[in-house]
Amino acid sequence: MGIKLKRGLFVGRFQPFHLGHLGAIKNALEHVEELIIMVGSAEYSHSDKNPFTAGERVEMIRAALKEAGMDPGKYLVIPIRDVHIHATWVPFIVSQTPKFDIVFTNEALTSRLFKEREYRVERIPFLQRHDYSATEIRKRILNGKNWESLVPKSVAETLVKIHGIERIRELAMSDNPTGAGK
Amino acid sequence: MGIKLKRGLFVGRFQPFHLGHLGAIKNALEHVEELIIMVGSAEYSHSDKNPFTAGERVEMIRAALKEAGMDPGKYLVIPIRDVHIHATWVPFIVSQTPKFDIVFTNEALTSRLFKEREYRVERIPFLQRHDYSATEIRKRILNGKNWESLVPKSVAETLVKIHGIERIRELAMSDNPTGAGK
Amino acid sequence: MGIKLKRGLFVGRFQPFHLGHLGAIKNALEHVEELIIMVGSAEYSHSDKNPFTAGERVEMIRAALKEAGMDPGKYLVIPIRDVHIHATWVPFIVSQTPKFDIVFTNEALTSRLFKEREYRVERIPFLQRHDYSATEIRKRILNGKNWESLVPKSVAETLVKIHGIERIRELAMSDNPTGAGK
Amino acid sequence: MGIKLKRGLFVGRFQPFHLGHLGAIKNALEHVEELIIMVGSAEYSHSDKNPFTAGERVEMIRAALKEAGMDPGKYLVIPIRDVHIHATWVPFIVSQTPKFDIVFTNEALTSRLFKEREYRVERIPFLQRHDYSATEIRKRILNGKNWESLVPKSVAETLVKIHGIERIRELAMSDNPTGAGK
Amino acid sequence: MGIKLKRGLFVGRFQPFHLGHLGAIKNALEHVEELIIMVGSAEYSHSDKNPFTAGERVEMIRAALKEAGMDPGKYLVIPIRDVHIHATWVPFIVSQTPKFDIVFTNEALTSRLFKEREYRVERIPFLQRHDYSATEIRKRILNGKNWESLVPKSVAETLVKIHGIERIRELAMSDNPTGAGK
Amino acid sequence: MGIKLKRGLFVGRFQPFHLGHLGAIKNALEHVEELIIMVGSAEYSHSDKNPFTAGERVEMIRAALKEAGMDPGKYLVIPIRDVHIHATWVPFIVSQTPKFDIVFTNEALTSRLFKEREYRVERIPFLQRHDYSATEIRKRILNGKNWESLVPKSVAETLVKIHGIERIRELAMSDNPTGAGK
Repeated sequence: MGIKLKRGLFVGRFQPFHLGHLGAIKNALEHVEELIIMVGSAEYSHSDKNPFTAGERVEMIRAALKEAGMDPGKYLVIPIRDVHIHATWVPFIVSQTPKFDIVFTNEALTSRLFKEREYRVERIPFLQRHDYSATEIRKRILNGKNWESLVPKSVAETLVKIHGIERIRELAMSDNPTGAGK
Repeated sequence: MGIKLKRGLFVGRFQPFHLGHLGAIKNALEHVEELIIMVGSAEYSHSDKNPFTAGERVEMIRAALKEAGMDPGKYLVIPIRDVHIHATWVPFIVSQTPKFDIVFTNEALTSRLFKEREYRVERIPFLQRHDYSATEIRKRILNGKNWESLVPKSVAETLVKIHGIERIRELAMSDNPTGAGK
Repeated sequence: MGIKLKRGLFVGRFQPFHLGHLGAIKNALEHVEELIIMVGSAEYSHSDKNPFTAGERVEMIRAALKEAGMDPGKYLVIPIRDVHIHATWVPFIVSQTPKFDIVFTNEALTSRLFKEREYRVERIPFLQRHDYSATEIRKRILNGKNWESLVPKSVAETLVKIHGIERIRELAMSDNPTGAGK
Repeated sequence: MGIKLKRGLFVGRFQPFHLGHLGAIKNALEHVEELIIMVGSAEYSHSDKNPFTAGERVEMIRAALKEAGMDPGKYLVIPIRDVHIHATWVPFIVSQTPKFDIVFTNEALTSRLFKEREYRVERIPFLQRHDYSATEIRKRILNGKNWESLVPKSVAETLVKIHGIERIRELAMSDNPTGAGK
Repeated sequence: MGIKLKRGLFVGRFQPFHLGHLGAIKNALEHVEELIIMVGSAEYSHSDKNPFTAGERVEMIRAALKEAGMDPGKYLVIPIRDVHIHATWVPFIVSQTPKFDIVFTNEALTSRLFKEREYRVERIPFLQRHDYSATEIRKRILNGKNWESLVPKSVAETLVKIHGIERIRELAMSDNPTGAGK
Repeated sequence: MGIKLKRGLFVGRFQPFHLGHLGAIKNALEHVEELIIMVGSAEYSHSDKNPFTAGERVEMIRAALKEAGMDPGKYLVIPIRDVHIHATWVPFIVSQTPKFDIVFTNEALTSRLFKEREYRVERIPFLQRHDYSATEIRKRILNGKNWESLVPKSVAETLVKIHGIERIRELAMSDNPTGAGK
């Protein structure tokens, strides 16, 4: 791929971190010397779409990348809260992270917002996208199906250790699964 | 039931306060010397799910408990706004209320969040749960069916006095019944 | 219509501004000497229901009223952010605008909130309401149907100039069309 | 004093509750049948001017009024967070409390804001105002002087029980006594 | 001055609007075809530094520019709330206003923030800066000195009409002149 | 030092990062296997006390620790915004970071808040505290005195590269050095 760019931004919520994310990060690191892994919606947790806290997600990501033998000098993990004002979302991210030269994302709105501010945006070839999806994993956990094969071993262990399985199932019994009004 | 705990927390939105709530409070007061009645989502009003202000709800609760002859030295009513960050919801409640030893709730997420912080949580045996539900009452008001029998007499009077019937019906005609964007 | 009131408030989101709005403003100006055009949900943009920023909407409205030959001394355009607390929405608007004597709106909740604070509220006879709707226009843009005939010429030009067509279509491809979590 | 008004609002921060407050409440209850004791700046604590949480302040007030033998059916204690927008401060309070007919305060801004919204406002004849001041009490605690004589006995006990003396002294050693930046 | 730029931004708080502002606006309009007059700190009022609401300030500005015979097609007045995050302040303003090509300000931080985002910034030659200052005017109002000569006649009339003199004086008697904690 | 704890939290604002911080981090890493370096007040920048964005501060810290030859697998840098509610500050930090067993701080309020939640808190023996202070460094930059000797070489380079010297000096010329009202 010729010469590498200095730093890239990889945007995700990682609810939870899975093998698709891992593949994407490896792919991105072929293009940049250093990768910022941005943990979005950082203040949310304990809801059906956002079961895990930012801290738990940071812990999963660190464990998974260590397990994969990746050089910790090549990436940094930064939690970013939602700002709810799209017109200032990109400038807010920029203020919370070291300078970056390229953004890796497949999400249409994220892509649009960075492009409107003249950032270079690249799609990431996710492997087996349908399965390696956090939505699919949460659904399998809920339904008692095999989900462990979709995440790194260390993530599966972390999920068990923090009682994540139980949490996802209890949240599904809530009158208020999104937790609106807490 | 043996010895009573000092203080309990009863969590609700009370949109509106009904006979099921009253039964639950009486039941809780068999277990604790004093009960904090927490009025949740306190800043919301004038929407389909939250028609009444916190102030109106406090007024209903005071009137209903007075009507039921309950000792005002045994309970206190505290409105609590939403914080929208589940990880800090319980600590925020704790900062706004006198210390409590037990939480009364049937809601799965509420229960989960308090248990994760080592609080004792008890389910409340609601009487005739299906009918004595605020959702059911709002639906009956909307459809012109009998709802008065599901609430204490003083609550029915308060609802009429504050033009609550008219408010619920007008909100239902809104393009925007949740009021998002106000 | 006899004597005119001094100042009126016309409430809208203008996503985008269309010929129905223009007709409504002309109608309102028959009743008041000066009209405040309030651009609601001002902080939102880049979502399916709120594609345009407040600044873009102000620009569209100014261009359209100029095109229509209206006297710029007769109206002023004020963007107002959402406060999300209905009980303080009207007082917040009042604090952000010059004093007004009448409110023009067809929306039930808006009407209710102003009436509860003793404001005079008038319905506006929108022309051909079904077509002249911002929802309809956004749908036509998305589906490649004719929408230009529903908006003033200068609005159509502004939409093209700011790449608004492309923006609406890209937002529709988002996993997250409301942009929740940005 | 002739006929009593139905309900009054007494505004304070109660950092901590002292004998001046108690006198004021007794005085107010000669004019109204029921008194709302509003605990302002409810979300703040652990700073030099706001050492105690709203919950701790509610607990102090309940204990002091019980100690004074006051009828718990005659008052209710409502914590209210700051809204930081003066133009909506009074409407926010009104939305969080049962309806009231009169406001008791000696503070000029509070008085002004209620009067601009047509509320009746009365000054309260505080007894020995200079000493019975929360600022004075916090200063005495800091300097190891006698403060116990300025508060009800139950408040002094609560302060000791929650390690309030130690808290006030440690906060004074902070680089950052207002806690800005936490 | 050669060819005019299309649109400029003039940043101020206008507490209150005075003859220095008027001179600055006239001066700016020699350089641009249209001027956005941004009313900053729009949500604040009823404090010593920010006595007037955004609505009152918009009303003063409209009246003063009308009195000065300025063409209402040449300017628009936009209230902007504080965002408290400097890194997103300029992008937020940009999202709330039509596109502009130049910023007029003498304030060092405002200048810096716009320059860091590659905006052209020009200083404004204020006439008799020392006297024509909002701080000076508020001080004179407080001390009963002549202030009327420093503001347009219509502003003086508006201030009297809204009881602004009385408000400034009462706020100065507050224990809490900045209103922190309301 | 016997057995190490698993993870520690080091709290700072790093405006800018200096040799005292570096010494403290080295010291802390003798006690824990992994250290979370929390960048507090993350949303603030461009003010006299908080000149640098969180992103710039993260970049300085990464560069300085790399320069010092420290193992990037031993630390992680997490920006945390202020929550302004002391009672929920510690729970918020806990939700944004991996689990930690000990907190390193010399600040009295920080220490108090963690101790009230039963965390182990240790003081850090800062070397030459008076000089190695961010306040002292900002003052020297402002006054044109030698500051480079107080920070790691890579921090000095970063400060120059981002025009940090010029920024600190311009902010000092602001009417509004804290930037309140932006």
